[in-house]
Amino acid sequence: MKSKTEYLTIETRRTREYHDITDDVAAVVDNAKINEGMVLVSAMHITSGVWINDHEEGLIDDIDVWLESLAPHRDDYRHHQTGETNADAHLKSLLVGHQVIVPITAGRLDLGPWQRVYYAEFDGQRKKRIIIKAMGE
Amino acid sequence: MKSKTEYLTIETRRTREYHDITDDVAAVVDNAKINEGMVLVSAMHITSGVWINDHEEGLIDDIDVWLESLAPHRDDYRHHQTGETNADAHLKSLLVGHQVIVPITAGRLDLGPWQRVYYAEFDGQRKKRIIIKAMGE
Amino acid sequence: MKSKTEYLTIETRRTREYHDITDDVAAVVDNAKINEGMVLVSAMHITSGVWINDHEEGLIDDIDVWLESLAPHRDDYRHHQTGETNADAHLKSLLVGHQVIVPITAGRLDLGPWQRVYYAEFDGQRKKRIIIKAMGE
Repeated sequence: MKSKTEYLTIETRRTREYHDITDDVAAVVDNAKINEGMVLVSAMHITSGVWINDHEEGLIDDIDVWLESLAPHRDDYRHHQTGETNADAHLKSLLVGHQVIVPITAGRLDLGPWQRVYYAEFDGQRKKRIIIKAMGE
Repeated sequence: MKSKTEYLTIETRRTREYHDITDDVAAVVDNAKINEGMVLVSAMHITSGVWINDHEEGLIDDIDVWLESLAPHRDDYRHHQTGETNADAHLKSLLVGHQVIVPITAGRLDLGPWQRVYYAEFDGQRKKRIIIKAMGE
Repeated sequence: MKSKTEYLTIETRRTREYHDITDDVAAVVDNAKINEGMVLVSAMHITSGVWINDHEEGLIDDIDVWLESLAPHRDDYRHHQTGETNADAHLKSLLVGHQVIVPITAGRLDLGPWQRVYYAEFDGQRKKRIIIKAMGE
């Protein structure tokens, strides 16, 4: 069994931002020389999401509006009694999840035609890390 | 390490439909002759879900109504400016997730007594693929 | 490839309850003597969740209130025609997911500074099991 681990660092300009990181994940798999296996893509923060979906700017806007409607920024979360102001970012992270597994087949990411790996920042403007860990043979 | 990859194709008659695919996943694991490991079950589309939950028709109806309430079909999504009409299907996919991992122990799917693997179609009436990839020894 | 499987049993006093099980997961990885790999943490029930997020009591309260607002307990779910009363627990499970993968690097859980593994009980007061399965080398 082979494994390869890399860490991707992202610092966004805005509080909420959405980045297509598919090419970064593919590069780790290329470097790992893994033919059959899986690669885990997992945010190392509790106010971030990782998902697989479409790369289409209108849809990204729809997702952003939708997440804010289901897990809105508000002042009165109990978490804010600690001095934090980002409880909504935790809820958004729980809603979409913070990790995906991409299958590796014949040395490549085995994704469907429209599938792209996204990093979703819900509490940005500081450095965040994503672990990309490939395993297989 | 052994691995085995199969692709399941589903074409639904309706736009939204829910299929218990546990037996298909178990068949892949049987063929793979893997004793200890994991099997990834992942939709290759961005308008589909995969989850593990109950096989009970009333609950499936509840889930369908609930998903429509939280991620409703509407005309005015920005994604629809591309000509698409299925933004709600993307949101539903993000809500429930598009993949699960089933542990394999002693050569079998190591599921709890009521756990069943479901494929959820949110934009059907055309062919969709699911990758089932087992890894282990 | 090595693998190690353990089952954690939790019986909560209340219907809904949230447990930090990070130390239990770390103990399995220690016992497995796996240096590089992944550990799957997966509820074996369809009315439970597993997530990675913050260990902060105010936030846990916020999550509990939020889940009840998005997937409320109600009498009139169709699932309840079977005699069950816990359809909301199934929906909550679908919303947050029932499993996570934790990467293992250099023999340890490779988590970010605030990441903790939680078991979320949505239909408790009876014994529930969580499978913790580590794979790697």
